[in-house]
Amino acid sequence: MSILLDGKATSLKIHDELAVRVKEIKKEGGKVPHLAAIIVGDNGASRTYVNAKVKTCEKVGFESSLIQLPEDISEVALLAKVAELNNDASIDGYIVQLPLPKHIDETKITLAIAPHKDVDGFHPENVGRMALGLPCFLPATPAGIVELLKRYEVPTEGKHCVIIGRSHIVGAPMAMLMWQNAIPGNSTVTVTHSRTTNLKEICLSADIIIAAIGKPEFLTGDMVKEGVAIIDVGITRVADATKKNGYRLLGDVNFEEVAPKASFITPVPGGVGPMTIASLMINTLKAVDRN
Amino acid sequence: MSILLDGKATSLKIHDELAVRVKEIKKEGGKVPHLAAIIVGDNGASRTYVNAKVKTCEKVGFESSLIQLPEDISEVALLAKVAELNNDASIDGYIVQLPLPKHIDETKITLAIAPHKDVDGFHPENVGRMALGLPCFLPATPAGIVELLKRYEVPTEGKHCVIIGRSHIVGAPMAMLMWQNAIPGNSTVTVTHSRTTNLKEICLSADIIIAAIGKPEFLTGDMVKEGVAIIDVGITRVADATKKNGYRLLGDVNFEEVAPKASFITPVPGGVGPMTIASLMINTLKAVDRN
Repeated sequence: MSILLDGKATSLKIHDELAVRVKEIKKEGGKVPHLAAIIVGDNGASRTYVNAKVKTCEKVGFESSLIQLPEDISEVALLAKVAELNNDASIDGYIVQLPLPKHIDETKITLAIAPHKDVDGFHPENVGRMALGLPCFLPATPAGIVELLKRYEVPTEGKHCVIIGRSHIVGAPMAMLMWQNAIPGNSTVTVTHSRTTNLKEICLSADIIIAAIGKPEFLTGDMVKEGVAIIDVGITRVADATKKNGYRLLGDVNFEEVAPKASFITPVPGGVGPMTIASLMINTLKAVDRN
Repeated sequence: MSILLDGKATSLKIHDELAVRVKEIKKEGGKVPHLAAIIVGDNGASRTYVNAKVKTCEKVGFESSLIQLPEDISEVALLAKVAELNNDASIDGYIVQLPLPKHIDETKITLAIAPHKDVDGFHPENVGRMALGLPCFLPATPAGIVELLKRYEVPTEGKHCVIIGRSHIVGAPMAMLMWQNAIPGNSTVTVTHSRTTNLKEICLSADIIIAAIGKPEFLTGDMVKEGVAIIDVGITRVADATKKNGYRLLGDVNFEEVAPKASFITPVPGGVGPMTIASLMINTLKAVDRN
């Protein structure tokens, strides 16, 4: 019987903890954390994500600013906005919601964000600090996964953790965090990707699988061993006429097949997703201390 | 029959290539690369390493400066020296030879080095850039290994690369470079370390093994499969009365046992070691363009 790693419930608990902390800060006369979010253009999914972040800020008592910029804004104008936020002492941390329109170089924007306000943890200095085990902003999704593993006390030390996908946002940082000398951590880590030849065999040897490739129901029951812990980072919209909104959300894991064999498993939705926003809030609180 | 990955010969070839490039630069009236090295105190091994670096500079036609500081220099004074080198336009890149005396915080010093002069590639910004596949100074030892794999055309794509050791200087960066979408690269990568439970089994499944733990002759013949490619990063002095200097150098690999099964193998000494200095020279040449 598998234990559900309930990201929704855990994130609500973190919200409560943060709300308590904000009340203490106010009582002490300290600075209330302030998160800003830049959104460029009118991408529906981006808007949904940013709105959820702003709503969570309100809920936990953080200040928030939503900066909506037009789709056709120039790269220079966006860089000027970034510089403005870097210099605005009232804002502790901010994010630039990705993806950006094609005429803007995302790397250039990411590099322009002051590392001490980079609560998404995407700036090379934060990535490098994570790799070196120095204080930093952890990228939100990996940080959320680590928090889930910690709170549910999923055994990681000496375990074989297989990561499917080598993305800069999830796969690669997750690998570094899982091999670090820490708990959670101290796992033997295998990073697999599109060039991996014997993925099934590798997955069958895994005690923990972190799937982050964005292929719906990719990981099937025959690919996992009894007792495996499963973290499903994938979240893909698949057309579904029976749903009111016309789609349903699928993870990278075939839940029905894999769950019966798993010791721990995250659902989709309600697993890693809500933890990502909770991590962003934790980073914003941390940013107050760093600034 | 295994092919020897001859780091000594390869590094000499790189020296020649660099010397040719320096002559071209001089002809074009460009800036001749200038490497500076700070050495604190009188550690014998450190002095040997730094001298070898300075000598290689002379050989390839780079300018070099050796800055010897007393063992009891204060952290503040060392930081002042670092700031001076950051601001000295005549110096393209520099290193602070580690280890430093115990009263100095190595991390603080590393963080103070300007990333664009950090030819050792130890600053978090360079580490993060490497992880993200952005232009950077690669740390010298991993860069040297990649260069060896490239020049000997060791197959890496889709191969299982097992890394023994998770150090910030070798194991961790090597993992990132081996899984990157590049040649060499595109390997399935497993990072193992002191908490790994079934190392022998994992090594037996490896097509490539990179051993970097500093335990003499740790990897034995029974731990590798036929046809494996071996990179031995270890280099430990072991007392040997039959030698004039009283010691011999041993790698992490039992060469006699492993070599007959290997497709490629680095010797110790004469393998990874000389490549490390060659990489430092390559980084210094790159630094001229970055500054």
